[in-house]
Amino acid sequence: MAGNTIGQVFRVTTFGESHGLALGCIVDGCPPGLEITEADLQVDLDRRRPGTSKYTTQRREADEVKFLSGVFEGQTTGTSIGMIIENTDQRSQDYSKIKDRFRPGHADYTYHQKYGVRDYRGGGRSSARETAMRVAAGAIAKKYLKQEYGIEVRCYLSQMGDVKVEQVDWEQVEQNPFFCPDVNKLDALDELIRQLKKEGDSIGAKLTVVANNVPVGLGEPVFDRLDADIAYALMGINAVKGVEVGDGFDVVNQRGSEHRDALTPEGFKTNHSGGVLGGISSGQDIVAHLALKPTSSITIPGETINVDGETVDVITRGRHDPCVGIRAVPIAEAMVAIVLMDHLLRHRAQNSGVTTTTPKI
Amino acid sequence: MAGNTIGQVFRVTTFGESHGLALGCIVDGCPPGLEITEADLQVDLDRRRPGTSKYTTQRREADEVKFLSGVFEGQTTGTSIGMIIENTDQRSQDYSKIKDRFRPGHADYTYHQKYGVRDYRGGGRSSARETAMRVAAGAIAKKYLKQEYGIEVRCYLSQMGDVKVEQVDWEQVEQNPFFCPDVNKLDALDELIRQLKKEGDSIGAKLTVVANNVPVGLGEPVFDRLDADIAYALMGINAVKGVEVGDGFDVVNQRGSEHRDALTPEGFKTNHSGGVLGGISSGQDIVAHLALKPTSSITIPGETINVDGETVDVITRGRHDPCVGIRAVPIAEAMVAIVLMDHLLRHRAQNSGVTTTTPKI
Amino acid sequence: MAGNTIGQVFRVTTFGESHGLALGCIVDGCPPGLEITEADLQVDLDRRRPGTSKYTTQRREADEVKFLSGVFEGQTTGTSIGMIIENTDQRSQDYSKIKDRFRPGHADYTYHQKYGVRDYRGGGRSSARETAMRVAAGAIAKKYLKQEYGIEVRCYLSQMGDVKVEQVDWEQVEQNPFFCPDVNKLDALDELIRQLKKEGDSIGAKLTVVANNVPVGLGEPVFDRLDADIAYALMGINAVKGVEVGDGFDVVNQRGSEHRDALTPEGFKTNHSGGVLGGISSGQDIVAHLALKPTSSITIPGETINVDGETVDVITRGRHDPCVGIRAVPIAEAMVAIVLMDHLLRHRAQNSGVTTTTPKI
Amino acid sequence: MAGNTIGQVFRVTTFGESHGLALGCIVDGCPPGLEITEADLQVDLDRRRPGTSKYTTQRREADEVKFLSGVFEGQTTGTSIGMIIENTDQRSQDYSKIKDRFRPGHADYTYHQKYGVRDYRGGGRSSARETAMRVAAGAIAKKYLKQEYGIEVRCYLSQMGDVKVEQVDWEQVEQNPFFCPDVNKLDALDELIRQLKKEGDSIGAKLTVVANNVPVGLGEPVFDRLDADIAYALMGINAVKGVEVGDGFDVVNQRGSEHRDALTPEGFKTNHSGGVLGGISSGQDIVAHLALKPTSSITIPGETINVDGETVDVITRGRHDPCVGIRAVPIAEAMVAIVLMDHLLRHRAQNSGVTTTTPKI
Repeated sequence: MAGNTIGQVFRVTTFGESHGLALGCIVDGCPPGLEITEADLQVDLDRRRPGTSKYTTQRREADEVKFLSGVFEGQTTGTSIGMIIENTDQRSQDYSKIKDRFRPGHADYTYHQKYGVRDYRGGGRSSARETAMRVAAGAIAKKYLKQEYGIEVRCYLSQMGDVKVEQVDWEQVEQNPFFCPDVNKLDALDELIRQLKKEGDSIGAKLTVVANNVPVGLGEPVFDRLDADIAYALMGINAVKGVEVGDGFDVVNQRGSEHRDALTPEGFKTNHSGGVLGGISSGQDIVAHLALKPTSSITIPGETINVDGETVDVITRGRHDPCVGIRAVPIAEAMVAIVLMDHLLRHRAQNSGVTTTTPKI
Repeated sequence: MAGNTIGQVFRVTTFGESHGLALGCIVDGCPPGLEITEADLQVDLDRRRPGTSKYTTQRREADEVKFLSGVFEGQTTGTSIGMIIENTDQRSQDYSKIKDRFRPGHADYTYHQKYGVRDYRGGGRSSARETAMRVAAGAIAKKYLKQEYGIEVRCYLSQMGDVKVEQVDWEQVEQNPFFCPDVNKLDALDELIRQLKKEGDSIGAKLTVVANNVPVGLGEPVFDRLDADIAYALMGINAVKGVEVGDGFDVVNQRGSEHRDALTPEGFKTNHSGGVLGGISSGQDIVAHLALKPTSSITIPGETINVDGETVDVITRGRHDPCVGIRAVPIAEAMVAIVLMDHLLRHRAQNSGVTTTTPKI
Repeated sequence: MAGNTIGQVFRVTTFGESHGLALGCIVDGCPPGLEITEADLQVDLDRRRPGTSKYTTQRREADEVKFLSGVFEGQTTGTSIGMIIENTDQRSQDYSKIKDRFRPGHADYTYHQKYGVRDYRGGGRSSARETAMRVAAGAIAKKYLKQEYGIEVRCYLSQMGDVKVEQVDWEQVEQNPFFCPDVNKLDALDELIRQLKKEGDSIGAKLTVVANNVPVGLGEPVFDRLDADIAYALMGINAVKGVEVGDGFDVVNQRGSEHRDALTPEGFKTNHSGGVLGGISSGQDIVAHLALKPTSSITIPGETINVDGETVDVITRGRHDPCVGIRAVPIAEAMVAIVLMDHLLRHRAQNSGVTTTTPKI
Repeated sequence: MAGNTIGQVFRVTTFGESHGLALGCIVDGCPPGLEITEADLQVDLDRRRPGTSKYTTQRREADEVKFLSGVFEGQTTGTSIGMIIENTDQRSQDYSKIKDRFRPGHADYTYHQKYGVRDYRGGGRSSARETAMRVAAGAIAKKYLKQEYGIEVRCYLSQMGDVKVEQVDWEQVEQNPFFCPDVNKLDALDELIRQLKKEGDSIGAKLTVVANNVPVGLGEPVFDRLDADIAYALMGINAVKGVEVGDGFDVVNQRGSEHRDALTPEGFKTNHSGGVLGGISSGQDIVAHLALKPTSSITIPGETINVDGETVDVITRGRHDPCVGIRAVPIAEAMVAIVLMDHLLRHRAQNSGVTTTTPKI
């Protein structure tokens, strides 16, 4: 059934396949009066866009987003914002060979089984190309969060293969094609990618998302927890296999006396929690990590079956990223921004206007 | 705003505080004709219930669930199922000392900031006691999944502190109070808990949930992915800080040629994916891991502030688990069962009755 | 699937059958800090309760509502409010005769066909008894709307059979058992009910709901219009067959020059629209009408079939209202209050905090 | 907040303003394998389209719908269907005069108050032009309902001003520009429209929607009743002020012995209920009526205020329908089809696969 929508109060619904006429989305519930232009969205779309560096796929997608509604004379009107990105560089011929075979690690098999029909061109709806619209929608959320509340949502590459970032310099992140915050690791990353290209293989990655200036009080206590919604949003990005908030899996071997963050009149002393307590933001930085699997589209032949159930080989020539994790940086930011936006508006619904001692956010 | 509901087609809404009159929930959308009694639910409630072993809290909560509606002459009627568990062993006096101070690691501070008012008794709504109703609702899902589709959802403790499980013997899981599948680790676990009790400290844990016989095709491709919904459900359990599907964070250092699961006419060769491809179940076992932080309620004094912003100490005497991870085993099963149930019904909505080649599930 | 919930931000979910152990509901999303007691709800429950006058059914239902959660020390905490009403006067023996036959005009047949199983006692879930919980939930909304915004939602009987109200004196409404605002019609109503009782028959009714002081701006423009949500809420009351907003069906023979309400610096000159323009409240009184069918449970024998498809007679002895419309007055108020509450909170979500010229509500 | 979506399992979300670049919508949850082309949708779009007869507005809108996603090689894939209609005949200059004044009977005032900003061109989002996308989405539902279940949803004009239809000949409906089923009333309708054009005035209308072959069992018992959802869907059409199911407001003066439909082994004897009992379809024809107010855009000057609160006159020259009710015929069909589609899929979610005696639909 319907499953292309995220958010309850600030709601994003997307459509579009890799090789269809266009991708598009509807952003519903955006507050009116927000000044926004397509150029505001294009910044993040360009960060996600393939073909911008030698480390990512050389497919060229213009990814030019166009508002069709909901923005009038430069500001949002409060009604639904319709947007599209027309597909221009489709090269359908690249994909005809895999029409009848299920690429291992891809959604070909599960789509075929679920729906019986399948747009096989470039993965159809399962293509990561779909995330362009998430980035576009997220950029609206990011602008609103920044302008009205000073909230900033940023992401960096924290690990690729065995190359681990050891220092975080936010200035560096946008200076290199890896979104790497540690200048000392750039050579190792470059070397790793070169090696993978030579081998025709790919590698996984770990990203870290941080949101600053998030007011205390966002998130619902039981099911719509802020951390649960962040986990949902990040696990919903193509290729993601793990999500952590704060110390994540390190907590398994922590003591209670070590993990709990002491509160002082000046604020928390540490941030093991990652900015969420009981599902609700604590006013500290929100910190989350995500793990992305290595690209399944590689030139090393893989064993699989075709639609008739016969064993066949598959080689994915196309033009693919050796590490899909890199381009996921703006996507992760967008997803967390959409979640924060939704929870911010949700919080306002319930908590404004009542005569309580509730701190305003 | 509203945030006490999980699921879209099979929908569970809960209420209740640790020390209120009762906990309760409404299970809406359950198919009619399912034979069910309170005893079916009691099995899992008893597995979660405190006071059953020396390794968990000695609070005694009868946790007797009662159907108030939706079940008639032993079977579900298709209308909303109302259930309650009356609170009996409340001991409100234990908590009066912490009325005005925020226990570190708990939701006291965030609730206070979000709502302005707070039921401070035993954590109120933020108490893990609330999860009893999730277990009750999950037991209905588990019964349906098992009976109609042969699906089984089970969980075990895979790590506590530095004690890691090395072999999985499902027979063992229900034979020891740790839900540990490795008989060789029982002594080490026992020793660790004893040590923690002596120190007045606590420890984190890692659990593994496995669902067998899940048909291929469950999950929506973009936002309501099966893995994203599992991440949401598991991250929404109290104390959870990390969730993995399949190989999880190990993928960061995997090659594409290593990670992708080869398909043969007999099925998949490996299960690195954890049973989900492109957000949709592949027909393999669903495998997920979760990390739970150490209990924040310990007798080692903690630094915090009171509602007036002054520095104070807090010691949580009460009766608490040295490792909340243990009792989370039936909760994790329940959450995954609820997600599978919802997606199973969702799949039926869209895919039955159309004349396609879609395999029936 | 799930269908026992109304509202998106202020959400009410109910359970319970006529002859089960209890009715109950969860009110989720209520702002914190609202002072409320069970007595606040009891007022409206007593107005709906049967057995209070000779004109309505003589069944005695105490209808005592009890908070189980979400209210602490006399005020709402912002978490989900659980409530129940225990069933006390059940008399199951009254209904055993109709176990296998479908009472005409009731939901017996459709429930049987939809679910295959059916709680036949007193109509089970289809009994109007279920509306007690709507009234309880609505009373919370009414209190909040009144206290925080001065909004009042009231209803009266505007027609029963051919007895039409000709003048509206709100003072009268609570002074007579018919909720009739026209003192001159009381004798005719009394006479009509007596006649119906003698005949063993029943009659339809028309009610009018008015909400005062509703701020301009509530409602979403396209699908979640305020008038559409009111129509949904009122048509969802048992026995309702028609809903009008403002002039309703009279518009069929109106001219545009006559219908459109002129705007002056002092406000609107007329209120043909019923307080809604383009789906959004105009700041005028919200006015809606609803038509309720005559009670189907009458002592005049009716023709029907049994579960085996054979023709049988059915006489509904029980203790039934000759006009269900009367007791629907507090239900209609509750439903409109719930809709307004939801839209008020929704409006706050989107419109607070943005730097626009949007008038605050 | 978000309010541009209808449906839960079959979900339609729209965007677009009268004079923006394009209208569009996303249809989410459509079963895969349905054969559909743009031409299937165009039929209904052309029935709604203005400029097709002398009785409706002479604005020319091509209203050519284009699939952007979700349809592959002529059939639906089960993923979200994106569609747009580009706006071509905009004539923005027509509307500059009313930029700062609130047309009486329109949503200008309420939008201005709600949002603070407003796309004043042709009513922006509040324009009935938005309904084109509902018709497009409804056409997909209509095709599926017809093909898979034999369900047909049709509508006709039952009254305009004081001209009431006296006989229903479905053959006639598509033969005249009024969608009038009574050939004897065509002259009176023609005469009425001519008169209105001369006067520069407009008139209301009543429509009747009938759905045949609807299986028994659709609809949820309490809040998501089939009749309540139909009321919601129809009241949500621009200009609608009243909705009836079955006998509607006539029930106010009916006796119970007269209203209740007797059941016989051959089926129901009458259809006073309009095909819905207890919120669930009975297997009879679904019958609903709706009342549409007269067009507010007329050339007779109206009194209003401008954004500065000063009294001004307004004359709506433009090209407008003397009776918006006529073109609402395909819109009403679309809305009912969307509701039925959603409930059909919802029913399948809960009721397939369980071993009960539930009749399959």
